[in-house]
This record gives sequence, structure tokens and C-alpha cells, in this order.
Amino acid sequence: MKIVVIGGVAAGASAATKARRVNENAEIIILEKGPYVSFANCGLPYYVGGDIKKKDNLLLVTPELFKKRFRIEVRLHHEVVAIDAKEKTITVQSPENSYKEHYDKLIIATGAEPVKPSLPGIDLPQVFTVSTVPDAESIVEHLAAGAQAAVVVGGGFIGLETAEALLQKGVNTTLIQRSQQLAKNFDVEFSRPLERHLQELGCKLVFGQSLSKIIGEEKVEAVELTDGRQLPTDLVIMAVGVRPRVQLAQIAGLQIGQSGGILVNAAMQTSDPFIYAAGDVVESLHLVSGRKVRIPLAGSANKQGRVAGANAAGGKLLFKGVLGTAIIKVGKLTIARTGLSEKEAQEAGKDYFVSYSPLNSHASYYPGAQGMIIKLVAENFTGRLLGAQIIGSLGVDKRIDVLATAIYAGLSVFDLENLDLAYAPPYGAAKDPVIMSGMIAANIVRGEIKQVTPQQLEELKKQAGIVVLDVRAREEFAKEAIEGAVNIPVDELRSRYEEIDPEKTILIYCRSGYRSYLASRFLQQKGYKVFNVSGGFLAYKMDVQVKK
Amino acid sequence: MKIVVIGGVAAGASAATKARRVNENAEIIILEKGPYVSFANCGLPYYVGGDIKKKDNLLLVTPELFKKRFRIEVRLHHEVVAIDAKEKTITVQSPENSYKEHYDKLIIATGAEPVKPSLPGIDLPQVFTVSTVPDAESIVEHLAAGAQAAVVVGGGFIGLETAEALLQKGVNTTLIQRSQQLAKNFDVEFSRPLERHLQELGCKLVFGQSLSKIIGEEKVEAVELTDGRQLPTDLVIMAVGVRPRVQLAQIAGLQIGQSGGILVNAAMQTSDPFIYAAGDVVESLHLVSGRKVRIPLAGSANKQGRVAGANAAGGKLLFKGVLGTAIIKVGKLTIARTGLSEKEAQEAGKDYFVSYSPLNSHASYYPGAQGMIIKLVAENFTGRLLGAQIIGSLGVDKRIDVLATAIYAGLSVFDLENLDLAYAPPYGAAKDPVIMSGMIAANIVRGEIKQVTPQQLEELKKQAGIVVLDVRAREEFAKEAIEGAVNIPVDELRSRYEEIDPEKTILIYCRSGYRSYLASRFLQQKGYKVFNVSGGFLAYKMDVQVKK
Repeated sequence: MKIVVIGGVAAGASAATKARRVNENAEIIILEKGPYVSFANCGLPYYVGGDIKKKDNLLLVTPELFKKRFRIEVRLHHEVVAIDAKEKTITVQSPENSYKEHYDKLIIATGAEPVKPSLPGIDLPQVFTVSTVPDAESIVEHLAAGAQAAVVVGGGFIGLETAEALLQKGVNTTLIQRSQQLAKNFDVEFSRPLERHLQELGCKLVFGQSLSKIIGEEKVEAVELTDGRQLPTDLVIMAVGVRPRVQLAQIAGLQIGQSGGILVNAAMQTSDPFIYAAGDVVESLHLVSGRKVRIPLAGSANKQGRVAGANAAGGKLLFKGVLGTAIIKVGKLTIARTGLSEKEAQEAGKDYFVSYSPLNSHASYYPGAQGMIIKLVAENFTGRLLGAQIIGSLGVDKRIDVLATAIYAGLSVFDLENLDLAYAPPYGAAKDPVIMSGMIAANIVRGEIKQVTPQQLEELKKQAGIVVLDVRAREEFAKEAIEGAVNIPVDELRSRYEEIDPEKTILIYCRSGYRSYLASRFLQQKGYKVFNVSGGFLAYKMDVQVKK
Repeated sequence: MKIVVIGGVAAGASAATKARRVNENAEIIILEKGPYVSFANCGLPYYVGGDIKKKDNLLLVTPELFKKRFRIEVRLHHEVVAIDAKEKTITVQSPENSYKEHYDKLIIATGAEPVKPSLPGIDLPQVFTVSTVPDAESIVEHLAAGAQAAVVVGGGFIGLETAEALLQKGVNTTLIQRSQQLAKNFDVEFSRPLERHLQELGCKLVFGQSLSKIIGEEKVEAVELTDGRQLPTDLVIMAVGVRPRVQLAQIAGLQIGQSGGILVNAAMQTSDPFIYAAGDVVESLHLVSGRKVRIPLAGSANKQGRVAGANAAGGKLLFKGVLGTAIIKVGKLTIARTGLSEKEAQEAGKDYFVSYSPLNSHASYYPGAQGMIIKLVAENFTGRLLGAQIIGSLGVDKRIDVLATAIYAGLSVFDLENLDLAYAPPYGAAKDPVIMSGMIAANIVRGEIKQVTPQQLEELKKQAGIVVLDVRAREEFAKEAIEGAVNIPVDELRSRYEEIDPEKTILIYCRSGYRSYLASRFLQQKGYKVFNVSGGFLAYKMDVQVKK
């Protein structure tokens, strides 16, 4: 049995080594068109930024180790240019010649190609993508040679991480985003604080623009934006997205899915039973929406590769699907997501609600606690979790993983209330943020509290018959508040509530949503029509900048 | 409606405030026999150790705030001495007098009493438990007054955290444990590294002993152990466990469960429908074993209090049960657990296996990664997770919470393989430790690999017909190895495997279990009878000290 793997990075390397573990007798070959296999592509921005010092740290398994440990033959600089599925052969272009290779099982792990739009100047040597080790090395060399200014095009994860890396290196960095939001796979209120923090770190942001050309003869001198503005720069980083490398699959006549990735079943088998595919080149089932999606991330690529390799070699593994869980750290800020964002829940036609919970990373009486805001997206009526997003600085990664596990398992907000999570003062709270976020959302499903989101508040407060009630302490209210709000501190509400017109609809907020929840419960039982502002002033300020 | 809550710490305070949110009109009274309500009892050791600087930080909600924010009356120094369930009255002993109080709903949140065995000298003023704010204050005062040496009796969480706090303060500390293991709710191989680390921190450990008396006239001078040894000391901390304060419940004729805690239903209602109970005084359903257990921890107490308060006030909430999730940090080490330990799985008669996975806290190419070892306990055949324990220094809290969520949801090791957890180099790995531990355990259930535990290895290697094969590199083997092992590095195995007698049973290990897994798969396919040593040398060394 001969197993040929096309592509030797995350999915390909996982597939080949798993195939070996399943089948000692198979002949296994990795064909890699680049100069490296099994490198840590997620580490490239950190190599640019200097957190990872040595290039060798990025190389996880060398061709030599593939050979001696796994008896896997790695052929570098070998590009597969055609697949003949009927004959079970591939055509390979090596540095020396072109040849045909037979396979019994083929695994396509060609990944995704960073998009390089055809622009004047795009081929200048100072225009980069951040996708391979040579890319990162070349950027590092240009920085060492004195590059002072960089333009990063695209505000997805790669663009953001690379912008941070460049800022860390003292480079004058401008990030250009075609739309009006960075990190577009998040709901907009999570992107806003990230954008502000990037600016604090010294990054210039340009929204609503893309490049019309890159200016320079021998080397990059400036970029020109679609509005005609020119920005002088030494480097251009193109991070405008990736597209799956499906050309070979198309040549082989394999079915391509609606999302544009190769269609596979849960065994990672393509429409040709002798051909498997894994990683950024395939589409996956989204476990919440039930839709086929392409989410090019390393976690899925590694798991899919392992499944493809096992099955190609005669084993039996399944890959169930994805939740689109992702996390990014920019400076002191971390944002993370899992399941459906609100935007995605809307698009998927879900009957959902959202709830914001500002909470502390651990017991507030133990030093070092940091705030975070959890946004849950859950089904109305059932309370089933659909998605979560978190912003904060400490403990965000833990909570998103707990929520990803809960969503994978189909848990509801009522389950979150009952989770038994680990508590010691350095690590959590007697009511962990995830549990608290569940309690808050469960109160909503049970009808114990009616709420509006900060976004709804912004709309509603313009209408007649609305009172915005701030129940924080006087000093807090004096410092900054939502425009038009009246202030009755929660501790005075029992004696002063009759100051409020019972004919009006009351939107109540405090700092985090807790005191306003108390006030809401009180006024509701006094017969008032009240809505709690979910997440309070903290959630409100994620999106809206408040004048002081 | 009048709701009376007996006890004002975790469960009691949660119950009273939740009752208020549910019912604005109820009269709510907290009767607390001590001088403080709503204090952070989990923070007490950290106050002793100086991490928490001010006593006020331990006081979460003051009686004044209960009054003005919640309209809850707190009566301090008021001890309830009797309940007349038929008349719905309680007898209260105040500093001034004794009186009767009527209730419509009663909530018992009397907690658990630290055990103080009746020993000569036990009432000397330098003998403490660590259960209340005055306890902690008094210890802090004695330290400030020059106490140099302390004896801590009991190696549970309170004893361990207090020992660490005393060491941090430069106190000459001896910990005395009646059994042969600290942190007895862990399997023994998790306690051993903790014990060694405590010794590194300067703590003297005495096993197999308890106190026979405390020596001193006006003040403590020494303790005498059951073997007659005398240890001079200035302070004695008694941390030998707690017992639920069920006397009042017994007076009221309430049913006590088999575990010794008050019996309650999922609504936290006792056998008297007008009386609820919550916190350390009740027993809870263990969600994995199905047994009733008493696990006095703050997380459950807070959740149960909330449920009891809601239901007493006319709401409807349920508390589902516990997993015994717990975490403790001692110096640089953190150990955590959830679900059933191996010991508990055995006692519960489960058909289980265990698997050890030494892994890194995050991508090893990103700086700062730290090792951890995950032990899973899972059902044979189904792979359903029964429990997990983790030891490490970074990222232990995250993984135990993910596993606690998985166990709550009834997930199996096959689900762990498929979790979609958040990955960025600072936060995890493309295959997160939890996912990897699932893959390793799933390989076992699928029969892809046969294994022995390090404990089984210790037994088996004494038998005839056994070869212990070390597949690490020569240098690693030369440095330290399991006694009697032979060394064939994994990368030489394909050319040298015939050196091994095919009639023998081969137990294979490496550092972490990965290279030995490769070797196992190879030899298995060559017809050898092989077992992989789960968790490798790292797991082996948790328990067994290896001579160099």
C-alpha cells in the first residue's frame, strides 16, 4: 500500500505520521512544494515580533526525523501539478524533472493560499504575505536592514498579529481595512475595544479603504489607497484572507462544496473513495449552524489530518465538525469566540437572545483580578447555547474553552448555572464567570428579568415614553454616564422610586448589570415596566464612546 | 412572608439575597452566631500568608449593605439553638436574651464545624482552626508578635494552604498527617510531588502520626505525637477536617442523609417542606457515582444557597449535583481534580481504565510553556469520562474546568478528541492538552494500543518473561532510567528490533509516552506482545523516586 500526501504542514504532517502509526507496512510519501515541512505557521507573527527567537523553533519535525522516526519520505520542492484519479497517479514537478507517481491512497493537504490581489507593484520584493517560514524570515531581514514603516493590509487574525509584531519591533505601522471593522468574525462591539487598543499601541488604522497600487521602482516607497491618498512605507504585508488550494482537486474531478472547500465526509474522504483531504483546503460541518463552512485554523487542520491519515491507512476515525473557536491576543487585550456570533445566529435564522456579563477573572479579594465581558448567544425558550464571545486580559482563554465544550455538548444556560468548576482564590471565583454568565442568561429565559442590549438602549432612548435610569452611586454618575440618564442610586431606590413616572418604560443600568438587576427586580414587583441594560455601562462602552 | 436564614456566610448570604430578588415583599432575616457575615472563608489562608493585605478585603457584604441594598436584617452574635418545625418557630440566643422567632420559610446554612479533638491543651490560646475571620486575625497577630514555629495538623486543603501561608511568612512549619498521604482526595501519585514540593519549600512532614497532647501552661510550648515524640512549637493549627453542623436539623426532626449531611431534594428542600438547607451542612448528589456525598466547597455552597433562597421565596430553581471539582496551589505546583479519582472509581465499582498524558501548557515553540500531567479515568468499552486529575504549574485550572464541563455533559474520550478549543500560541496548542489526553485515551478504548500504568509496571517488572524497553535517546537513558530497563532508541528500532526476544512481553516507555507509543505500534505490527507505559517516565516519577 502506498499513501501519498500532498502538502507537509499541519494537516499533511499529521496525516502522514498517523498513517504510519496505523500501518507500519505502508509506503508513505509527503510531497511538499516549499522548502520546509511541519512548521508552526501560527508562530510566524511571533517570530517576526521577536517572541520566538530562533527560526529552528518553528520547525517541528524535520525531513530527517520523518525519515528515521516514521519511515516517511519527504520530498521538498516537489509540486504536484495533476491528479489522474482514474489511473491513481499524480504528476509531480521536481526541481529536476516532471514525473508520475502511483498511489493507492491520496491525501490532499494543500492548505490555503494567501490572497495577493493583482495590483501594480504587488511583486516588489518588500510586499509580503505571512504564510511560510521564508515569508517571516524575509520580513525579519528587512526589519534588521532598517525598515521603519509598514503597511498591513487586512484586519483578520494574521493582519492583527503581524501588526502587533511590527509595533513591538518599533515599526511605524498602519493597518488598512476594507470594511469598517477589524476582526470581522467577531460582533462589532468586540472589535471596537481591540481597535482602540491597537491605536494605543501606536498603530494607525484606516477603514473603508484598500490598496489601488503599490508605488516604487526597485523597492516599495508608498502605497496608494482607493481614495487616492498615498502612504509612504518600506514594507507591505498583505493579509487580506486566504483561499483554499482546490485546483488539484478540481483537476481530479472531486466534488467541491458550496463554501468553496473540498467536500469531505466525516472520515475526511472526498467524493473519490481513494482520495482524502484535510486542513484549510476542505470545508467542515459547523456543529451549531449545521452549515458547511471554511474556517482555516490549525486546530481543525491537525485533527482532520489525523483522521484522514488513519482512514487512508486502513483505520477508522471520524472528524465531527467545528465550532469556529478562535482566540487572539493583541497587546494586553484578548478576544475569543466559539459557536455562533450574534451576526451568524441572525444569518442562520436562529430564534436567539444575547446577554452580556462583565465579571472578574478570579475572586476579587485576591490580588490581580482582571475584568472580562462574556457575551452569550442562546436560543429563546430552550436556553440552548449557540455561541459566546469574551473580551478581557486574564482568564479569557479558560472561559472560552469551557464554553466551547459546553456548546459542543449541546448544553444550555441552565447547565452553565450548574457547572462544578474548580475554585481557589488564585484561579476563579466561587461563582465562576462562566457560571455567572449562565445564571444571568438563565434568569432571562425564566422571565425573571427583562432586558435590552446596549445597542437596543441606544435606539430606544431616542423614543418618547422612555426613562434611562442610572442606579450607580452619585460619584460614578458624576464621572461619566449615558446621555439623558437620571440617577437614583440603587440603595436609595426603595425610598425614592415614586419619583419615577409609572407610565414610562424604564431602562435601568449600572456599571456591570448587577445593581440594575436588583433595581429591575424591585421596580418590576412595584408594577413598573422595566428593562435591565445587559452588561451595564461596561458593555455599553465597548461599542459607544462616552463623552466625559 | 417571613424568611429566616440561619448562618450568613457563603450559602446563607447567597440564599438571603436571592430570596430578596425573587420576592421584594418578604421579610428576610439572617441570624449569624459569629461577628461577621458574607466573608471570604476561602481567602483566610491567603490573609494569613499576606497575599491578601487587609481584613476588609475578606468582607464581601457588610450588615449595613445587606440592610440598605437588600432590605435584609442581619443579626450578628445571634445563635439559633432550637427549631420547632411544627410551630414554625426558632429559639434564638442573643447576647442579651433568648427569644422565639416565627418563620414562614426557614433556610439552614449553618455550614460545617472544624473538628477540634478533645486533647489536653486543645483550648490553649495558640491553638487555632482556620474557619473564621477572627481565627485568621488571631494567627496574624501571633505571627506579628514573633511566633517562630508552627505545627499544622491535617493535610487537606485548609492544612496545605495554611502551611504554605506560614512558610511564606518565614515560619518554621511542620505538617502532621495521620495517614500516609497529603491531599487524600487525590490519587496518591498526585500527592507525592506535592509532598516533595512542600519539603522543598521548607515544610517538615510527619506521616502516620496525630497529636496525643498539646504541651504548655499559659501558652503552647510543644506538641506530643502518638509515638511519644515532642515537637516544640509556638502555634498549633488544627485542620483535621470539618463536620456538618446538623444539630439544629436533628432537633427539628429533619432527615439526615447517609453521608451525615442534611438530606435535601434538588430544590434544596429538606424533609420538612417549609425548611430549606444549603452549603456545607447538606449532602449532594455526585453526578458521576450517583451517590450522596458531602464535599464542603464554596462553589456548591453559593449555588445551593441561591437555589434555596429562590425556592423559599416562591421561585423555582434546581441544584443538579456535584463533581467534586477542586484545585489547590502550593508554591509553584497546582493540582486539580474533577469527577471520580481512580480510588473513587474503584470504590464505586466502575469498570474503568486510567491514562496519563504529560503535555505542555501551550505550544512548545512559544516561550514559557510548562509541563503538566493529565490523568483521565474513563469507562471501558464506552470511553465515558468518569474523572480527571491534573498536576502542573501553568494552565491546570483551564484544563480541569474543560474536563469538569465534559464530565458534567456526559462526554466520552471520543468527544475530547473532537473538541474545538481556542488556539493561539500564547494560550494553547493546535492539539490542546485536553484534546491530546482524549486522543491517547481513545486509542486505548479502540484497542489501537495496549498499556500498563506506571504502578502496574512496578509490579510486572518483577515477573519472569518481561522486558522493560526504554526507547529514549542514549543520553536520556544514561542520565536516569527505570531499573532493569534495556535501551533501544525509537529511531533505531526498525533496524534493531530483532534483538528483542519475541517470546517475552515488552513494556515500553519513553519520557512522556509518545515515542513509546510509536514503538508500541511498530512492535505490535511485527507480532510482539507489547504494552505502552502510560505517561512514560514522567508519570512513573510522580510516584516512584528514581536513583540517579
